[in-house]
Amino acid sequence: MFYTDYKLQYPVRVETPDPAFARALQQAIGGVEGEIRVAMQYMFQAWGMKGPKSSRYRDLLLNTASEELGHIEMLATAVALNLEGAPLELQEEGAADAAVGSIMGGRNFRQFLSAGLAALPVDADGVPFDMSHIYASGNIAGDMYANITAEGTGRTLATRLYHMTADAGMRDMLAYLIARDTMHQNQWKAVIEELEAERPQMPVPNSFPQESENQDFNYVFLGFTSDGAEPPSGRWSEGPSIDGKGEFTMQPMEPLGEVPPPPPARPGTYPQTAQLAEE
Amino acid sequence: MFYTDYKLQYPVRVETPDPAFARALQQAIGGVEGEIRVAMQYMFQAWGMKGPKSSRYRDLLLNTASEELGHIEMLATAVALNLEGAPLELQEEGAADAAVGSIMGGRNFRQFLSAGLAALPVDADGVPFDMSHIYASGNIAGDMYANITAEGTGRTLATRLYHMTADAGMRDMLAYLIARDTMHQNQWKAVIEELEAERPQMPVPNSFPQESENQDFNYVFLGFTSDGAEPPSGRWSEGPSIDGKGEFTMQPMEPLGEVPPPPPARPGTYPQTAQLAEE
Amino acid sequence: MFYTDYKLQYPVRVETPDPAFARALQQAIGGVEGEIRVAMQYMFQAWGMKGPKSSRYRDLLLNTASEELGHIEMLATAVALNLEGAPLELQEEGAADAAVGSIMGGRNFRQFLSAGLAALPVDADGVPFDMSHIYASGNIAGDMYANITAEGTGRTLATRLYHMTADAGMRDMLAYLIARDTMHQNQWKAVIEELEAERPQMPVPNSFPQESENQDFNYVFLGFTSDGAEPPSGRWSEGPSIDGKGEFTMQPMEPLGEVPPPPPARPGTYPQTAQLAEE
Amino acid sequence: MFYTDYKLQYPVRVETPDPAFARALQQAIGGVEGEIRVAMQYMFQAWGMKGPKSSRYRDLLLNTASEELGHIEMLATAVALNLEGAPLELQEEGAADAAVGSIMGGRNFRQFLSAGLAALPVDADGVPFDMSHIYASGNIAGDMYANITAEGTGRTLATRLYHMTADAGMRDMLAYLIARDTMHQNQWKAVIEELEAERPQMPVPNSFPQESENQDFNYVFLGFTSDGAEPPSGRWSEGPSIDGKGEFTMQPMEPLGEVPPPPPARPGTYPQTAQLAEE
Amino acid sequence: MFYTDYKLQYPVRVETPDPAFARALQQAIGGVEGEIRVAMQYMFQAWGMKGPKSSRYRDLLLNTASEELGHIEMLATAVALNLEGAPLELQEEGAADAAVGSIMGGRNFRQFLSAGLAALPVDADGVPFDMSHIYASGNIAGDMYANITAEGTGRTLATRLYHMTADAGMRDMLAYLIARDTMHQNQWKAVIEELEAERPQMPVPNSFPQESENQDFNYVFLGFTSDGAEPPSGRWSEGPSIDGKGEFTMQPMEPLGEVPPPPPARPGTYPQTAQLAEE
Amino acid sequence: MFYTDYKLQYPVRVETPDPAFARALQQAIGGVEGEIRVAMQYMFQAWGMKGPKSSRYRDLLLNTASEELGHIEMLATAVALNLEGAPLELQEEGAADAAVGSIMGGRNFRQFLSAGLAALPVDADGVPFDMSHIYASGNIAGDMYANITAEGTGRTLATRLYHMTADAGMRDMLAYLIARDTMHQNQWKAVIEELEAERPQMPVPNSFPQESENQDFNYVFLGFTSDGAEPPSGRWSEGPSIDGKGEFTMQPMEPLGEVPPPPPARPGTYPQTAQLAEE
Repeated sequence: MFYTDYKLQYPVRVETPDPAFARALQQAIGGVEGEIRVAMQYMFQAWGMKGPKSSRYRDLLLNTASEELGHIEMLATAVALNLEGAPLELQEEGAADAAVGSIMGGRNFRQFLSAGLAALPVDADGVPFDMSHIYASGNIAGDMYANITAEGTGRTLATRLYHMTADAGMRDMLAYLIARDTMHQNQWKAVIEELEAERPQMPVPNSFPQESENQDFNYVFLGFTSDGAEPPSGRWSEGPSIDGKGEFTMQPMEPLGEVPPPPPARPGTYPQTAQLAEE
Repeated sequence: MFYTDYKLQYPVRVETPDPAFARALQQAIGGVEGEIRVAMQYMFQAWGMKGPKSSRYRDLLLNTASEELGHIEMLATAVALNLEGAPLELQEEGAADAAVGSIMGGRNFRQFLSAGLAALPVDADGVPFDMSHIYASGNIAGDMYANITAEGTGRTLATRLYHMTADAGMRDMLAYLIARDTMHQNQWKAVIEELEAERPQMPVPNSFPQESENQDFNYVFLGFTSDGAEPPSGRWSEGPSIDGKGEFTMQPMEPLGEVPPPPPARPGTYPQTAQLAEE
Repeated sequence: MFYTDYKLQYPVRVETPDPAFARALQQAIGGVEGEIRVAMQYMFQAWGMKGPKSSRYRDLLLNTASEELGHIEMLATAVALNLEGAPLELQEEGAADAAVGSIMGGRNFRQFLSAGLAALPVDADGVPFDMSHIYASGNIAGDMYANITAEGTGRTLATRLYHMTADAGMRDMLAYLIARDTMHQNQWKAVIEELEAERPQMPVPNSFPQESENQDFNYVFLGFTSDGAEPPSGRWSEGPSIDGKGEFTMQPMEPLGEVPPPPPARPGTYPQTAQLAEE
Repeated sequence: MFYTDYKLQYPVRVETPDPAFARALQQAIGGVEGEIRVAMQYMFQAWGMKGPKSSRYRDLLLNTASEELGHIEMLATAVALNLEGAPLELQEEGAADAAVGSIMGGRNFRQFLSAGLAALPVDADGVPFDMSHIYASGNIAGDMYANITAEGTGRTLATRLYHMTADAGMRDMLAYLIARDTMHQNQWKAVIEELEAERPQMPVPNSFPQESENQDFNYVFLGFTSDGAEPPSGRWSEGPSIDGKGEFTMQPMEPLGEVPPPPPARPGTYPQTAQLAEE
Repeated sequence: MFYTDYKLQYPVRVETPDPAFARALQQAIGGVEGEIRVAMQYMFQAWGMKGPKSSRYRDLLLNTASEELGHIEMLATAVALNLEGAPLELQEEGAADAAVGSIMGGRNFRQFLSAGLAALPVDADGVPFDMSHIYASGNIAGDMYANITAEGTGRTLATRLYHMTADAGMRDMLAYLIARDTMHQNQWKAVIEELEAERPQMPVPNSFPQESENQDFNYVFLGFTSDGAEPPSGRWSEGPSIDGKGEFTMQPMEPLGEVPPPPPARPGTYPQTAQLAEE
Repeated sequence: MFYTDYKLQYPVRVETPDPAFARALQQAIGGVEGEIRVAMQYMFQAWGMKGPKSSRYRDLLLNTASEELGHIEMLATAVALNLEGAPLELQEEGAADAAVGSIMGGRNFRQFLSAGLAALPVDADGVPFDMSHIYASGNIAGDMYANITAEGTGRTLATRLYHMTADAGMRDMLAYLIARDTMHQNQWKAVIEELEAERPQMPVPNSFPQESENQDFNYVFLGFTSDGAEPPSGRWSEGPSIDGKGEFTMQPMEPLGEVPPPPPARPGTYPQTAQLAEE
């Protein structure tokens, strides 16, 4: 169950409203690197968490999911503040200016047309966020890697937004969000480290009996160069494997299968007659 | 530039065709955990790779991208083989049987209706793969974590498919694909380890000057419980941070911002009159 | 800012797990009539709310948004409970049974394959929810009608789910959710009634100067029958208009414009030569 | 069955072509507030209409669906007229001008690249309309509220477009469309009023036996504030409910359920070993 | 402008309702091979048609677009008739039967849950139609090929549906739709033949000065075999080209470009430090 | 199985980087007319190919699929080169310039924000490519028409991009791609011609017994004008049909079906009470 107190988690100030930046901020709201994604991802991971020892992780996920909802709120507030004073008429003074005129210049119509100068749950190109990006596999290590990925792309995005703007208020807000992304990357990796203390977590899932996988191909780096040239070597091509369960080798791949013959076409699927056997 | 020799990377056999399994296999083709995703992701990461030392990683990505194309091919071949003999009429014998009749029972219409009994680039529910799932951030560590995630969810999916079927041919193919997922998880993590040898890679991106992020909130686990109860403690709440750059602490979060007052509504956005200041 | 206490808003019990019902419940989670939609819609409406009198409505929306998050949680819990004991192998006993075997019969693969027997943010056909369904126009009456619609379709869905199942636990949970949909329909309509007490709210937006709209066509029901037959008459074709600002009339529509001549094709758009003027 | 006479429902004139406005108009064609949506929504509602008294409503819906098809036609014509004379080369004179250069300035590439200077079935950001926005629930009151919502957001959009442009031709066309939105809002509400004359229509659906819903929670406004502060009061918190069937009250919500324990993880779903009971 | 007379273009009868077939028919409504697609495609092609001689083609397109709207209507009517008598409760008699029980067996929930037993604008897997499938390029020959493709896939789909069912009513309706697809394939190809009478239409677009394309590679079939083996020969590898403007040849492709060096990474994009030049 | 040699198929040069053109090029990568589409379409057609004579066509498709992968690579390389030197700060010199400033002016944020100045698998408006555009029907003639369409729209797009830019390097690359589109249009049509040599290929599918389709409507052009005016005549309205199997005629369409009565509403679907028979 969830609660609110209507307050912002961290202050949001804009010194000089910039409608173009209002558009860029959308990526941190409704982009695949954004805050809707992590909020919903942590919730669905929590609700799908299983096993006798997983209550602590469930609570951990619900705590941070709640935090991320507050980050969407901060960013939506920042968007509205950046839209203040934007020209609303194609002929209005400033509309022809590339920096100021991003609303009327055709680059940011929807924050005006669809929302009346407010944030939308879309990315910086106006593409709505879709929930296929919620990774919640039921495997805790798999989920944690998905979360490290999400926080890494999220922090990269936030640093690029920080670089774009010189507004002191926006930079203060982004410095807070970047710090939280630092913590969250550490936090999810800490879960893996805690689990690693008991037994190796790789390869994910570690509960599949590894002797059932093909033993000739599980630690070999395969090359797919057309001229059989040696593929690039490195940490991945020799020495013990990262999971400590094998030894890296390297080889060019040769096809082990044949050219698959096209199966017969059945009349009821209505191919062209040339495809039917009896022709 | 890419080449083909028409051959299968690994043999694909089906002993007892099963149209329901043909549908399940779609998840490994067009699902977000599937092979189209990794093939295209590694390509776009390669094409977006930057920096003087990154040629080796670019080649590494293109090699494995080529391999993944061959995995789509293997799975598409497996789908077609599992569809052999499927009933094509609602009244046909077997159509009413839950196991055999998955085509005509209404659960797998599109492999017949749209493709004439072949694989589609969709997931097990028929949702087409969309390219928003290609993560290629231009940051090599961020990309590697995305790849570890993709291979971890991919291997989890493949083990579940392995569990579903008792067909010896299908299990042999899946044992190969599971082994490759083991290698690829190790491989992408090996890139991070190689980079770690020079300097810490976390937090991603490690080129952002970390002193610019908010120093009060970058290593503290925040609790968001409504009653102020202590959030769950663990590796993430005390001790040195995972990236070695800070010390974990824990505290309940209090709002640092105020309730944001609704901004004035501008007449040109056409709100209800009650929202206008002058009313 | 948001908080949680990890508890369920209302108890969730399942007496007889039913994997087919687990699939049907997805519609109430990730369908366009579902709970993700209302939770996010009320949040974005709150964050886009403008005008000096709108603080109360902002808080109202944030309160109910928090409630709806708890409803997703209840439904996700119900899905997991309904999946208990589902067969995971195509040959497993029960898999061939139409009612029990919905996982292995091919109708509900993804709750197993992608989530390890848990809820997904998708609808009953596996289509992920996308955020284009969040209606937040910046116009309070427009938003309230969108909310009445959402709660009406939500309650209709919940009654159909109630009808489908005979499980006492599921019916108890649904009876609670149906009651809340009753309240929420009333609640959003109460906002309109409160606003109506001051001045008419229709047509939305009521701040546009209505004398600027075409006065010949704003209260006439137009017929588009090919034979000029009288269109159906009713409350909409005579008497005072619902908004009290006009008088309904009815007439068959005649085109007021001409056949638009195709504009010239410009060479730089590369049409076929037959489309170019000079040919 | 449908017919055409190739003519425009209302004249479409553009005095000064403006490619940026051509892009903005897309929202009224392929946006969720646009004309494709209402045309298809009214058709699917008509085709799904059931019950002995519903023929009149079916005809009403098909009439207005036909009208809306003509509105898409008007808007597509307006887009083509606004694109006349747009620069097609990045270096062409005018391309660098923010107002004129919206095609070559990068903000409106697709009307040129994909359609050769014509309208597309996409919104102002180029996102294609998708049919999940067609609300046709089989419940007539639910459908009418969806239609009021659609016409309300449609009219709000049209007034914002009217505000954006000073072109007399475009304003004349929009004044017509705004008038029709006024009528259609009234029209769909008139259907509800006609039905209300016989019996209350709320809560939707009104055929569900209301005694089956939870009687403790169907007319109470619940607060979800983290500090238990009183939620905002208003028309929704006291007095008779809007549907006349209950009395509004207000209370802070306390969780009625417990913290749900994570269910056991089954081996066949391949979680991490730490999640398995036997560990 | 469009009109209706509420009548069906062709009679729709169902002798034995079959809810599974109701699901299959969705592919012909909202699938990419379906009738929404052609109706909207022909309209947008008409509205984007340009050039002095194109009025006839514009009218032709609008005529057939009107026809296709009537086909959606026929199919939606057929869906509703096939849903009559479907069980609505999971325990209802027949629900466990694979053929009858497609609603309650979990394969066709949404026609009940979302539409109250009616058609939806989605495909046979429940994926909503999206308007990115409307091909209207502004080039008449390009559009005609898109139409031949649409009618070819549409007819293939209709023949497969015909094969699936033994219901005499459904077969009568489908025999009509298949006939219309025959005509429409011929019709669009007739437009190309009419244009060919004046000058060659290939390659599309034929108004681009063909001497500007690379003359070494415009009529050569290139092989991309990894071992340099000769690619398959046929009509495409020797003899005059189909457009009559060249001579087919065949050769294995050798890369003409080099390995592209990764460009430098800019600090403001925040890559990992290893990617930065100065490291 | 697929291979790579890391080299570009054809050299890619940019003389004057242009970030706006980098955005336009996205349409050729991730647009529906683009290279991802053809690469994946030819692969899925190959993997779905059936029938004893189809091996040659399967190889042909795999060859050209490999080529198209190399075209994506060329275009992604071109995007990165066009982004060199783009301003990354809203206040940076050049950012306010409409031509140079397309990144910071708000029109092309995502190539910077999401990819660090590289190509994305999206179209020129940022909409991700989705795999529903892969047409692979299992019918070889149907597939070939889909391919001619894809190459025709692809070539039209490439000529428009050629027209947009004056950069000699970009024009050289596009001249190569345009030439390949010429060949591929010819190539797929050559397959049809080869098949036609044996027997007529139209209407698709030609294996459906044509006597089963409705013989009264398979070669008649139907008019749907509201006033019964004669529809436009041409090659499609008289003379032998294009497929040589019938004779074209023309007639205005009269409805052959009646107004379909709304079916009864069932209580379990919870319509409004007014829709129920017993009321």
